[in-house]
Amino acid sequence: MSEPTYTQTQQVKIIRNEALLEKAERLKPVLIEKQVVPTRLVDVQPDPKAIHGWQVVDAGTPDELTRRSLGKGDSVIVDFGDHRVGYLSFDVSPVGSPPDAPLKLKLTFGEMPVEMAEPFSSYEGWISSSWLQEELLFVDVLPARIELPRRYSFRYLKLEVVDSSQKYKISFRDLSVRAVTSADGAVLQPLNHPDPLLQKIDQVSIRTLEDCMQDVFEDGPKRDRRLWLGDLRLQAMANYETFRSNDLVKRCLYLFAGLPDERGRVAANLFIEPTVIADDTYMYDYSLFFAASLYDYYEASGDREALQDLWPTARKQINLAWDYTSNGLVSVESDWLPFIDWHPDLHKHAPAQGVLIYALKKGIRLAEAVGGPEGEQAAAVWKKAVTQAEKAAMEHLWDESQGFFVSGEECQVSWASQIWMALSETLSTEDNQKLLLRLLEQKPKIGMTTPYLHHHLVEALLISDLRTAAVAHLEFYWGAMIEDGADTFWELYDPADKSFSPYGNHLINSYCHAWSCTPTYLIRKYNL
Amino acid sequence: MSEPTYTQTQQVKIIRNEALLEKAERLKPVLIEKQVVPTRLVDVQPDPKAIHGWQVVDAGTPDELTRRSLGKGDSVIVDFGDHRVGYLSFDVSPVGSPPDAPLKLKLTFGEMPVEMAEPFSSYEGWISSSWLQEELLFVDVLPARIELPRRYSFRYLKLEVVDSSQKYKISFRDLSVRAVTSADGAVLQPLNHPDPLLQKIDQVSIRTLEDCMQDVFEDGPKRDRRLWLGDLRLQAMANYETFRSNDLVKRCLYLFAGLPDERGRVAANLFIEPTVIADDTYMYDYSLFFAASLYDYYEASGDREALQDLWPTARKQINLAWDYTSNGLVSVESDWLPFIDWHPDLHKHAPAQGVLIYALKKGIRLAEAVGGPEGEQAAAVWKKAVTQAEKAAMEHLWDESQGFFVSGEECQVSWASQIWMALSETLSTEDNQKLLLRLLEQKPKIGMTTPYLHHHLVEALLISDLRTAAVAHLEFYWGAMIEDGADTFWELYDPADKSFSPYGNHLINSYCHAWSCTPTYLIRKYNL
Repeated sequence: MSEPTYTQTQQVKIIRNEALLEKAERLKPVLIEKQVVPTRLVDVQPDPKAIHGWQVVDAGTPDELTRRSLGKGDSVIVDFGDHRVGYLSFDVSPVGSPPDAPLKLKLTFGEMPVEMAEPFSSYEGWISSSWLQEELLFVDVLPARIELPRRYSFRYLKLEVVDSSQKYKISFRDLSVRAVTSADGAVLQPLNHPDPLLQKIDQVSIRTLEDCMQDVFEDGPKRDRRLWLGDLRLQAMANYETFRSNDLVKRCLYLFAGLPDERGRVAANLFIEPTVIADDTYMYDYSLFFAASLYDYYEASGDREALQDLWPTARKQINLAWDYTSNGLVSVESDWLPFIDWHPDLHKHAPAQGVLIYALKKGIRLAEAVGGPEGEQAAAVWKKAVTQAEKAAMEHLWDESQGFFVSGEECQVSWASQIWMALSETLSTEDNQKLLLRLLEQKPKIGMTTPYLHHHLVEALLISDLRTAAVAHLEFYWGAMIEDGADTFWELYDPADKSFSPYGNHLINSYCHAWSCTPTYLIRKYNL
Repeated sequence: MSEPTYTQTQQVKIIRNEALLEKAERLKPVLIEKQVVPTRLVDVQPDPKAIHGWQVVDAGTPDELTRRSLGKGDSVIVDFGDHRVGYLSFDVSPVGSPPDAPLKLKLTFGEMPVEMAEPFSSYEGWISSSWLQEELLFVDVLPARIELPRRYSFRYLKLEVVDSSQKYKISFRDLSVRAVTSADGAVLQPLNHPDPLLQKIDQVSIRTLEDCMQDVFEDGPKRDRRLWLGDLRLQAMANYETFRSNDLVKRCLYLFAGLPDERGRVAANLFIEPTVIADDTYMYDYSLFFAASLYDYYEASGDREALQDLWPTARKQINLAWDYTSNGLVSVESDWLPFIDWHPDLHKHAPAQGVLIYALKKGIRLAEAVGGPEGEQAAAVWKKAVTQAEKAAMEHLWDESQGFFVSGEECQVSWASQIWMALSETLSTEDNQKLLLRLLEQKPKIGMTTPYLHHHLVEALLISDLRTAAVAHLEFYWGAMIEDGADTFWELYDPADKSFSPYGNHLINSYCHAWSCTPTYLIRKYNL
């Protein structure tokens, strides 16, 4: 994700904890490589029924590529059969007279057909056009072996001869992708689900997770290729049910803990290269998720070393977050806004209250695991905090007449508020059920814009024992993405507006995105 | 040069002579490297009086580049102070928040201000746009050291930030060019000419030659970066008076001799990479220049090994060329057209007759140097041929009433015909003088379009003892190029139409071109 609202220009002082960062460095995974070759040639054609209006159609076998000569203005689209993250290489040879001018070649990489069909020059969104995956190559000496040094995230590749000369054309041979991931498929257990749609959703989820698992858990291998805490929490949950790369989660938690600001807050995301750097973006909910993620990790791994090392950071996030309450009610300030969801009109006090209570409860279990006087004291303090926060929520955010939690002076009723308050388990299971069924029936106007929030809806339904509704929503939402052609699950998907992008253009969206990979967790964890 | 007229599509069978090619390979020079840094920042401004309508103006010291932050849409033009051929490297660092998107950077290299001012996308000429020197770079990790693998020919470099992000800008540092040449400046003798313009012309000539001297004598380091026989002959002549890299000439002659076609013709030009290949272009005059160039080389070096090795090739070119005569008159055929000059309306029979006689006379001296029965026999045969060809020229091409040589059925009077017939020394020196003075006075409409032909005019004047006119033309033509801002001499220059390009656009012209480097030869050889 890329969120301008949270961009902070003030300088934040980072207090590096080298001991934690060194442990993170030692946990750096070795990437697993695999050679992948094209499965076919394709064309893209306009189709009003297809997502973004473009349909892929067969245009030949991979063998035909080698037999085809391309001159100035010619292009070909290669399909690698599935979403891939890796490094492209190919041979290019001249056909005709000896090349009397360099070859000017344009490459366009796409996760989706639209990236093959609509020119990147049409992009005018607010985030950088540099995310659009393309290259302009000049090849002085032919034949040549081209090995591109950058990593791409794609299924489709368009090769365009911008110019050669009147005397020669070119042909391509031996295209391949050296696909990379740190996820080890060997440990993966088959699901064998009787429902073919859930089976397929599980598989696409895993593929999404796999392609996001690199040196760290990336949010999206196309964009931002970065470690975001909100994504990490969900990836880790999916990972415990699938690849069980616990050390990768551990590495990421140590990285966050190693770079707090002077107040002790962990950043919302980290840059990994050239050295690990905390981005100057802080999010109230993401910081709290450090504690939740550490608890989840400890529960999955039983790793007491990590618990001891990272507990102070987790405790700090909760205590700092509590400082932003007034009489138990979250009072969000501009230096530490929560994310919650992309909806531009969403009022975030009520959902942030839900996140705080949710995190406090995870924190209490974490404190109990730590034990000793320190753990006991923290648990005791936070139990009181939970009581106070739940009481404040019921007094100030609960609207008995509507049967919904409301947020802000205008008493906004949003999906996000109900979902997060349900996840906070402030209400009894029975009342949560009523709340969520009412939500599904009444469908408030301030809806969900990200798979991230859809995940939280499904999990809220599941912890409220609404399994049928949960599966229905899972199949409705992620099933529709598959129906629309997802090889991996997307950063953004609104079934009612399939070209939605908070960035102003669907070309820039990430179509393999960490926070969308959770169905495998939901299906496997809850035995759906 | 790039000449579509001479493009031949028929397959030509090449008979490789590995022994000669091996000797050429052993003569491959070691390039001399030099680090060159920018001298200033510049802007380009419209100026109707400047060549191509663009003037360069000062825009700061090189230090300011480092202090400047460039964001999306910003650009800067760096001046390296003189024409350079080499490899660019620089550091690029982020300014502001950590880079949250790749850097998209466009580089444009220019020998001339116009290349900084007019977008390459405006180019629509017939030769490949891939010659326009540009790069589109995506930098994923910042700061970065960028070391570009391609060689460029330029003085100016435009750095444009196509996109970064809203959170960071960039700055550049430590720009430098690793300039390369095989010319050894240490052997160069100073000229110290009392005429400052001739002094300057000599210096720019040498610079032109130096930048064209690489693994082979290239025609132009921007374009075509290739070994053309017509250029080689002139470069070699300039080289004997300056860098005296006789082995580089030898290498190039062996390369041509190593790749004849099955009839024994040497190609008009060779590709050097990935392996040496004869281009499928043959030119009547260029093939003859093999013999002339070998004679010049032997005269400069006294190298009898090369004479013995290459004499058969030289003899073959002359004998094959003679086969294209009828009663001593050149009868040019479409499979072996001469070049002579770029003028689109030039009729080439008469100038080709001049070239043939010129080459026969060099061939005779070559045969005499070879000696023995073989050499004597060839010399005897060619002496008869000269007599026959000169007689045929006077009978069929000389128009006594006009006092000019004419070409073709329409009896075209061109500069080229008079120049080459003068160089053939068919007339006495006195008659040559009259012919050339008449030429300078009457200025026939079919003029000169290349420095290549201007060179031959000046040399014709010099061998006809018209030194004043020769110097005047040298200063008029090459002096005007300097006046128009030449750091190195250009491929094309028409003082009456300064944007002339046979390629349809002046952006694609080469502004450091071998065949323009000859003034240093003319000045030094003839002690002007």
